[in-house]
Amino acid sequence: MDMISSTTFIALVSIIMAGITTGFGTMGPALAEGKAVSSALMALAQQPDASATITRTLFVGLAMIESTAIYCFVVSMILLYANPFWNLAIEQLVGK
Amino acid sequence: MDMISSTTFIALVSIIMAGITTGFGTMGPALAEGKAVSSALMALAQQPDASATITRTLFVGLAMIESTAIYCFVVSMILLYANPFWNLAIEQLVGK
Amino acid sequence: MDMISSTTFIALVSIIMAGITTGFGTMGPALAEGKAVSSALMALAQQPDASATITRTLFVGLAMIESTAIYCFVVSMILLYANPFWNLAIEQLVGK
Amino acid sequence: MDMISSTTFIALVSIIMAGITTGFGTMGPALAEGKAVSSALMALAQQPDASATITRTLFVGLAMIESTAIYCFVVSMILLYANPFWNLAIEQLVGK
Amino acid sequence: MDMISSTTFIALVSIIMAGITTGFGTMGPALAEGKAVSSALMALAQQPDASATITRTLFVGLAMIESTAIYCFVVSMILLYANPFWNLAIEQLVGK
Amino acid sequence: MDMISSTTFIALVSIIMAGITTGFGTMGPALAEGKAVSSALMALAQQPDASATITRTLFVGLAMIESTAIYCFVVSMILLYANPFWNLAIEQLVGK
Amino acid sequence: MDMISSTTFIALVSIIMAGITTGFGTMGPALAEGKAVSSALMALAQQPDASATITRTLFVGLAMIESTAIYCFVVSMILLYANPFWNLAIEQLVGK
Amino acid sequence: MDMISSTTFIALVSIIMAGITTGFGTMGPALAEGKAVSSALMALAQQPDASATITRTLFVGLAMIESTAIYCFVVSMILLYANPFWNLAIEQLVGK
Amino acid sequence: MDMISSTTFIALVSIIMAGITTGFGTMGPALAEGKAVSSALMALAQQPDASATITRTLFVGLAMIESTAIYCFVVSMILLYANPFWNLAIEQLVGK
Amino acid sequence: MDMISSTTFIALVSIIMAGITTGFGTMGPALAEGKAVSSALMALAQQPDASATITRTLFVGLAMIESTAIYCFVVSMILLYANPFWNLAIEQLVGK
Amino acid sequence: MDMISSTTFIALVSIIMAGITTGFGTMGPALAEGKAVSSALMALAQQPDASATITRTLFVGLAMIESTAIYCFVVSMILLYANPFWNLAIEQLVGK
Amino acid sequence: MDMISSTTFIALVSIIMAGITTGFGTMGPALAEGKAVSSALMALAQQPDASATITRTLFVGLAMIESTAIYCFVVSMILLYANPFWNLAIEQLVGK
Amino acid sequence: MDMISSTTFIALVSIIMAGITTGFGTMGPALAEGKAVSSALMALAQQPDASATITRTLFVGLAMIESTAIYCFVVSMILLYANPFWNLAIEQLVGK
Amino acid sequence: MDMISSTTFIALVSIIMAGITTGFGTMGPALAEGKAVSSALMALAQQPDASATITRTLFVGLAMIESTAIYCFVVSMILLYANPFWNLAIEQLVGK
Repeated sequence: MDMISSTTFIALVSIIMAGITTGFGTMGPALAEGKAVSSALMALAQQPDASATITRTLFVGLAMIESTAIYCFVVSMILLYANPFWNLAIEQLVGK
Repeated sequence: MDMISSTTFIALVSIIMAGITTGFGTMGPALAEGKAVSSALMALAQQPDASATITRTLFVGLAMIESTAIYCFVVSMILLYANPFWNLAIEQLVGK
Repeated sequence: MDMISSTTFIALVSIIMAGITTGFGTMGPALAEGKAVSSALMALAQQPDASATITRTLFVGLAMIESTAIYCFVVSMILLYANPFWNLAIEQLVGK
Repeated sequence: MDMISSTTFIALVSIIMAGITTGFGTMGPALAEGKAVSSALMALAQQPDASATITRTLFVGLAMIESTAIYCFVVSMILLYANPFWNLAIEQLVGK
Repeated sequence: MDMISSTTFIALVSIIMAGITTGFGTMGPALAEGKAVSSALMALAQQPDASATITRTLFVGLAMIESTAIYCFVVSMILLYANPFWNLAIEQLVGK
Repeated sequence: MDMISSTTFIALVSIIMAGITTGFGTMGPALAEGKAVSSALMALAQQPDASATITRTLFVGLAMIESTAIYCFVVSMILLYANPFWNLAIEQLVGK
Repeated sequence: MDMISSTTFIALVSIIMAGITTGFGTMGPALAEGKAVSSALMALAQQPDASATITRTLFVGLAMIESTAIYCFVVSMILLYANPFWNLAIEQLVGK
Repeated sequence: MDMISSTTFIALVSIIMAGITTGFGTMGPALAEGKAVSSALMALAQQPDASATITRTLFVGLAMIESTAIYCFVVSMILLYANPFWNLAIEQLVGK
Repeated sequence: MDMISSTTFIALVSIIMAGITTGFGTMGPALAEGKAVSSALMALAQQPDASATITRTLFVGLAMIESTAIYCFVVSMILLYANPFWNLAIEQLVGK
Repeated sequence: MDMISSTTFIALVSIIMAGITTGFGTMGPALAEGKAVSSALMALAQQPDASATITRTLFVGLAMIESTAIYCFVVSMILLYANPFWNLAIEQLVGK
Repeated sequence: MDMISSTTFIALVSIIMAGITTGFGTMGPALAEGKAVSSALMALAQQPDASATITRTLFVGLAMIESTAIYCFVVSMILLYANPFWNLAIEQLVGK
Repeated sequence: MDMISSTTFIALVSIIMAGITTGFGTMGPALAEGKAVSSALMALAQQPDASATITRTLFVGLAMIESTAIYCFVVSMILLYANPFWNLAIEQLVGK
Repeated sequence: MDMISSTTFIALVSIIMAGITTGFGTMGPALAEGKAVSSALMALAQQPDASATITRTLFVGLAMIESTAIYCFVVSMILLYANPFWNLAIEQLVGK
Repeated sequence: MDMISSTTFIALVSIIMAGITTGFGTMGPALAEGKAVSSALMALAQQPDASATITRTLFVGLAMIESTAIYCFVVSMILLYANPFWNLAIEQLVGK
């Protein structure tokens, strides 16, 4: 396998994984946030007086859940713009 | 693998991942928003007096969930119009 | 791989992804809208007096959910009629 | 790959995606409409006096859901009768 | 790929997609209609006096759901008897 | 690919799709009818006085659902006994 | 592909589809009948006085559901004993 | 493909389909019978006085469900012992 | 394909199908019996006086369900010890 | 395919099926026994006086369910230690 | 296939099946025991006086369920340390 | 296949199965323990006085369930550090 | 396989596994956190006075669940930036 | 297969299994912990006075469940940093 093929394959799987990691990795957080928001609304309907506590707990929870979605987005961005394998491959291709 | 094949394969997987990332990545957010809206409506029916709090919480929640759908859409747009691997491949093809 | 094959493969995956993105990507929004409409009807049956608030919240929610379906449809249309990879491939084929 | 193969493959995937987009893409809307109609009937049984509001909300909801089924049908029809890739391939085949 | 193979492949995928589109595409509508009829019967048992409204809403809903099944059947029939790609292929085969 | 292979492949996929279309396509209608009958029996147990309305609604509903099963059976029969691609292939084989 | 291979492949897929069509196609009807019988028994326990109406409705429903199982069995039998493609292939093999 | 291969392949798929048709085809009926028996026992616990009607309805229902399991078993036995394709292949092999 | 290969392949698929038919085919009956026994125990807890009727119905039901598991076991044993295709293949191998 | 390969393949699939038949075939019985024991415990909590009848019915039921697990284990042991195809293959290999 | 390959393949599938049989085969028993323990705890909470009977029944049930997990573990150990096919292959390799 | 390949393949599948057996095999026990702990907490909330019995039963149950997870971990460790097939292969490679 | 291919393949699977481990591995924690937050909100609505205990327990639980998401993220980062196999491969490639 | 390929393949599957074992193996524990925490919160809401016992039981349970996640993480770390097969392969490569 020559250097061009090698560089191309690294580009290909980086694109594929960037898409899959974000596309599928945000599915879980989205559903989890939907469940959390749904419960918050139900809780508000049941106990409107506790709206301050409920809202605060909801926001902390959403932040925790969103963090897992952000892990996925970060990995996608790393693969697209700060990919260590790609950088090394490009250096070698240029230096060839 | 010559440069044309290399460029073509990068175009192919970019198209494929742009479609998959948006097509499947919006499934989770859509279902989550449906669940959130559904609960908001149930909460409104149960406690109409708290409609202000419920609506506000719903909008914050929908914004959080929509953000994961937008991550997917952004990755798709990056792959179609700001693809770093494609740009580099085109530069090399033109400069060849 | 010659230019004709390259152009053909780009056309093929564009067609495939246009179909898949719309065909599968509208499944989530459709189910989510069904859930939202279903809850709205239940809420109306339970609290007919709040029909104004319920209807308004439903429409906002449906708009949010429909937006994810539209992301998918937009990506499909881009792939069919404003595909940057295809445009570049055609230019090169014509200019060959 | 010669021009005839190229044209044939475009025809093949157009047929395949036309079938899959409609065949699978109408599954979600159908189930969503079934859920919406089902809830409307339950709501009518629970609150017959609100039949006007319920029916109106149901029709708006069904229209929204049906729109996603129509996106799929439209993409299928585009692929069969207004396929830009096919048109270009045929022009080149004729002009060959 | 010669013309006979090309024509044959178009026939093959047309047969396959005609079967799949109808065979799988009617699954969703069938289940949705079953759900709608089921709810109508439950609603009738709960509120026999509203049988006129219930029956009317049921029929409108069944018509909407059946429409998605008919989209699938129409696409199958188009693929079998009004297939634009097949017609063109046959013309070329005859004119060869 | 010679004419005999071509004819054979058309026969093969026709047999395969005839089986799959009926075998899987009747699964949805069967389950839907089971759900409808089940609900009708529950409705009868709950409201025996409305047996006339319930039975009538059940039969209309079963007819609608059965129609989707019949679409599948019709497509299977068309593929086995009125297959336009097969007829054309046989004509060419005989006329060869 | 010679005539013997052609005939063999038609026999092979006929056997495969005969098995699959019956083996999987009876799964849906069986589950649906189980659900219908189950509901009938529950209805009898709840309203023993309506046993005549319940039993009659059950039998009509079972007949409808069984019809879809019979479609599958009929297609299997056609593929094994009245297969039009096989008959034609055998005629040609004998007449060869 | 010579006659021995042809005969062997027919034997192979006959064995495979005989196993699959019985192995998977009895899954649905078994679950359906489990559901029916389960409901009968619940009904007996709820209404012991109606045990005659319940038992009779259960037996009729089990007979209907068992019939679908028997279709599968019959197809398996036909494939093993009365396989028309195998008989013809053996005749030709012997007569060769 | 020579006779030894042919005989070997028949042995291989016989072993595979014997395992699959029993291994997967007993899954449905086991779950169904678990459901039936579970309901019987619940019924006994609810109506201890009807224990005679419940036990009798349970045993009849278990016998019916077990029959489908036995169909699978019988097919496995036939494939291992009374396989008609194997017997014929061995006869030919010995007689060779 | 020579005799050594033939013998090896028979050994391979025997090992594979022995593992799969036991590994997957005990899944159903295990879940079914879990369900039965679970119901027995619930029944005991609800009706401690009927503990004799409940325990007896539970043991009969567990014996029936365990029988299906034993079918799977028996088939695995047959494949490992009393495999008719293996015995015949070894005889021929030794006798060669 | 020479003797070394033959021996290697037997080792490979033995390792694979040892892992799969234990890895997947303990999934069912684990879930079933979780369900049984869960019900026992619920039963204890509902009827603390019957703790002796409940605990005894739970232990008998867990023993029955654990037995299926042990079948899987036994088959894995047989494949690793008392594999009849491996022993014979090694004997032949050594005796070669 | 030479000895090095043979040894390599044994190493490869040992690594693969060690990962799969632990990675998937702990899924069932984890979920089962989650269910058991969940029920224990519910039971404690319902009957705090029986906390001694509940805790004791929970620990016995968790130990039983954990045992299945440990079976999987043991098989993984055997495959990595006490693999009989690997030891024999290394001996032969060294002794070669 | 030369050293460049070897290095490339290690880069490829590192990228793939980095994406999959984070993309799929955060799905479970996200859903679990959604469930935990959802229950906390419900608990707050039911017992506002215990908000201190509930919030504290929720945070401990979220920390435990988040730890499993962090395991996945850590493995992804190790594969991208501290991959022992890659480091060794690069050393050998440079030292070559 | 030469030594370099052999070493590379061991590195590849070690990376793959390290990712899969952690990525999928933490899914079960995460969901189980989510369920346990969720139940603890519900139990706290229902019986705030038993918070000490509930919290203690929850922590013991979480520790048990976390142990299965740690098994997976340990296996991943072993595969990356203490892999016996890799160490031996490197020794041979260096000693070559």
